[in-house]
Amino acid sequence: MARAWHLKSRPTGMPTLDNFEIRDLSAAPLGEGQVRVRNLWLSVDPYMRGRMNDVKSYVPPFQLGEPMQGGAVGEVIESNNPGFSVGDKVMHMAGWRDEAVIGAESMPQKLPDMGVPLETWLGNLGLTGATAYFGLLKVAEAKAGDIVFVSAAAGAVGSAVVQIAKNKGMTVIGSAGGADKCAWVKELGADACVDYKAGPVLKQLAEAAPKGVDVYFDNVGGEHLDAAFALARDWARFAICGMIDVYNDGKPQEMKYIIRTIPARIRMQGFIFTDYIQHMGEFHQEMGGWVAGGKMQSRETVHEGLDAMPDAFFGLFSGGNTGKMLVKL
Amino acid sequence: MARAWHLKSRPTGMPTLDNFEIRDLSAAPLGEGQVRVRNLWLSVDPYMRGRMNDVKSYVPPFQLGEPMQGGAVGEVIESNNPGFSVGDKVMHMAGWRDEAVIGAESMPQKLPDMGVPLETWLGNLGLTGATAYFGLLKVAEAKAGDIVFVSAAAGAVGSAVVQIAKNKGMTVIGSAGGADKCAWVKELGADACVDYKAGPVLKQLAEAAPKGVDVYFDNVGGEHLDAAFALARDWARFAICGMIDVYNDGKPQEMKYIIRTIPARIRMQGFIFTDYIQHMGEFHQEMGGWVAGGKMQSRETVHEGLDAMPDAFFGLFSGGNTGKMLVKL
Repeated sequence: MARAWHLKSRPTGMPTLDNFEIRDLSAAPLGEGQVRVRNLWLSVDPYMRGRMNDVKSYVPPFQLGEPMQGGAVGEVIESNNPGFSVGDKVMHMAGWRDEAVIGAESMPQKLPDMGVPLETWLGNLGLTGATAYFGLLKVAEAKAGDIVFVSAAAGAVGSAVVQIAKNKGMTVIGSAGGADKCAWVKELGADACVDYKAGPVLKQLAEAAPKGVDVYFDNVGGEHLDAAFALARDWARFAICGMIDVYNDGKPQEMKYIIRTIPARIRMQGFIFTDYIQHMGEFHQEMGGWVAGGKMQSRETVHEGLDAMPDAFFGLFSGGNTGKMLVKL
Repeated sequence: MARAWHLKSRPTGMPTLDNFEIRDLSAAPLGEGQVRVRNLWLSVDPYMRGRMNDVKSYVPPFQLGEPMQGGAVGEVIESNNPGFSVGDKVMHMAGWRDEAVIGAESMPQKLPDMGVPLETWLGNLGLTGATAYFGLLKVAEAKAGDIVFVSAAAGAVGSAVVQIAKNKGMTVIGSAGGADKCAWVKELGADACVDYKAGPVLKQLAEAAPKGVDVYFDNVGGEHLDAAFALARDWARFAICGMIDVYNDGKPQEMKYIIRTIPARIRMQGFIFTDYIQHMGEFHQEMGGWVAGGKMQSRETVHEGLDAMPDAFFGLFSGGNTGKMLVKL
């Protein structure tokens, strides 16, 4: 019997296990055009926290009593659609479950055999990599020679940003929590890494980037964003991807240097990777080349089994993961 | 004997009279190419507060012991330059003094006779109007049908923004301090006015703009900026012109809604009017037409005499002025 995590109640603040409930899915025969997919890898991502709130946003909120959704890769085990054969590997958004029935409203993407591990399609070749690529190159318009600062640089998106920036000839300063994570960020090619657990971000960033920063790729908000305001060079561009510092507590962020927006003519732009979906071809071509050429390393923090899904999700907010957080089924 | 206000010391926080000193200027014969101008109107503007600090910025700081500078209009009384005749009306940046000697490094702009009061060249036809025009139309790319929120809407720049927006077919919500100022903002054509002294900005703005705002023209920062973050519609554009709330105290600004940058894909851009100097021709043509056609009202708060210059300047930060703050000589 297939099972799925359902949203039982909406969290206030940090989500807890009480907000989720695992339930059997009713077993129905496939309808016209549908396929049945056995999921092999499930993704947890910070943006899912936003979907747990009942607010209008770029993606609709999860519905109470309904299955959760999210990125997943799997294998077609039954097909009522001539476009899909049993055995096809696919990527789709019916995650948080071990088996998915998918219809015409959201057909899966068939995955070519690129000789890469399947889970790469949830990482550098998937939403994670596309978010990093579009944010850095399209939103912030980063170019060779720019000095780039990226927060949560040991995270899934951040570690991709570091490597894309280096592949493109930029100077990169990452930020991560702890010496181990910083060591990995430098392994990825970063010119310097700010350990935000070791002291104030602003002071460390000023030392690592004495000329200031041209581009800031924000995954966390708060102190990191303010340090970027403080040290932005003229015409700096900020791509605002996430603010994980405040997803759960919603407290006000103290911005001491936001006024530098004016003299430095900073441009701050929020984005969602789907805004740049028309560039997916370019992304797949360039990222595919880097992945195939060994120019995009990745690390995964892997939890095992569907039951571990909420724990994997909570881990995103405790700083527990390095690289992409995944659940293997 | 000509006199000029000099910077005596740098303020910490709100400037006081102790920071200024009025001194005689040495009377020297004109050098090659120079002109002597008797100033008739002097401008005080919020950006001058930034120039009192010793920090690198888009304009160099005022130098200790040297005369202050700023916008001024006057009449040529002596010319050693074939391009200028005695009697010419000119605009230039050697303000804060009653008489100016100006050379090739910063030649004055000759003013055409448009049948408008001379001081208009320090207001809607000058830096003030150009700042409003470029910020609204170039930085925020506001267009007909947009819902525009502008703070300090009874101020010099803000009142120009209100009228440009209405001339261009936008919906406009202004913000000003007190019922009298709000009444004037509505006289200028604003569809609604938030009185920030009467209650929280966010609540009032939400009532005035139930659909949210497409454009925010920021002159004040702080609570107003945060309210704009809270109520920004998708793809909203913020033109950040000033943050007068924090020029003097430098305290952190609490941003509770900046995280909406992501789902609403807000673009926030700081600017200085000189960034758009290549569009001055377009500005003069369109603004000139509006001024001539009675479509740009203005109010001035006028102080009399050079000795009143610091008081006029201080008035910018106490909310004392309606419209453009000027000193008449």
